[in-house]
Amino acid sequence: MRNRFNEQLEQLNVELIKMGALCEEAISAATKAYVEGDRELGERARSLEQDIDHKERDIESQCMKLLLRQQPVAKDLRAVSAALRMISDMERIGDQAADIAEIARYMEKSAILRQVPMEEMALAAIKMVTDSVDSFVRGDLALAHSVIAQDDQVDSLFLSVREKLTALIAGGENGGLCLDLLMIAKYFERIGDHACNIAQWVEYAITGDYEDD
Amino acid sequence: MRNRFNEQLEQLNVELIKMGALCEEAISAATKAYVEGDRELGERARSLEQDIDHKERDIESQCMKLLLRQQPVAKDLRAVSAALRMISDMERIGDQAADIAEIARYMEKSAILRQVPMEEMALAAIKMVTDSVDSFVRGDLALAHSVIAQDDQVDSLFLSVREKLTALIAGGENGGLCLDLLMIAKYFERIGDHACNIAQWVEYAITGDYEDD
Repeated sequence: MRNRFNEQLEQLNVELIKMGALCEEAISAATKAYVEGDRELGERARSLEQDIDHKERDIESQCMKLLLRQQPVAKDLRAVSAALRMISDMERIGDQAADIAEIARYMEKSAILRQVPMEEMALAAIKMVTDSVDSFVRGDLALAHSVIAQDDQVDSLFLSVREKLTALIAGGENGGLCLDLLMIAKYFERIGDHACNIAQWVEYAITGDYEDD
Repeated sequence: MRNRFNEQLEQLNVELIKMGALCEEAISAATKAYVEGDRELGERARSLEQDIDHKERDIESQCMKLLLRQQPVAKDLRAVSAALRMISDMERIGDQAADIAEIARYMEKSAILRQVPMEEMALAAIKMVTDSVDSFVRGDLALAHSVIAQDDQVDSLFLSVREKLTALIAGGENGGLCLDLLMIAKYFERIGDHACNIAQWVEYAITGDYEDD
């Protein structure tokens, strides 16, 4: 019974890693769709969002089976419970990547895209997602904590983007484009928040403590 | 055993209704904080967000106990599974209400607040949340469907706000304020999305079908 449980938990981990990889790919595709104005990559981000949604349903049903058949307790129960919450955050990350791609699709090309630190935000957000999934895979509490710390950087980049956009508007830049850029920055910031949540669930799975921010 | 399960499910429903009521109150408080610039109501929205988070943890632990002790199947399992997902959406609604209150707190008073259909958005979003929780309580599939239909209205109001803000920026209005208003509108739109998700979970609990948008 125990061995069977461990096998199933191992299988669950593999699926979570796959879902994390899909999220990273979706954010990268959305970022490139934005930076390079590449429509195909935008399509890719949207199709990855669908894959992520399916993966979420599969993992959820796997977790439910585990809970019902194996009735885990203590740390094992926490692992399944954390997995159920992590997939919800990963699903939202997929949504946000698709939202970025959707805005990028209709956004006009403009030199001001280079004037806001959006790529820096994108890279920081992707790193948070990668690290949060890695921290789960390795059971690495220090890495989970570093993800939570990285969130301040993404939040502060969001404020920089916002400030820059306010200045651009004051300088007479196209308002619609600035509003689009603010939304994209907000989506990257939200991706950071979700990675942070994932790291908090990793902490909960390992220690039993959950620290809400 | 069955009666005990039904009792516990009944108790779970009561808690979900309470959590829904907290969400409605949080959105109302945040909306008033925005409309009336009332700081105390802003504080109230933020403190309600904490209550909503605690309620989520309580209900989650109640669901886990139900799953482990009663091992429900079919419709009963779907009810618990849907409850677990609904609380996640309600928790995000609480976050978004607090985010609105946070922006309202530092936002300057201005006549342009009356020029965007924000209160209309707020009312539409609150109605969606109320109806989604009601549809769950009454097991009312038609009401759940109406929530999903109402989402189009909120989405279209968001586009109106965005269009109005673009025009205001072009007319030389304060860019920072317009960016704040866009964020608030986006939060109301997200609240509508979460209510829509709740309605989809209600549909799943009743019929076993889940239609992702």
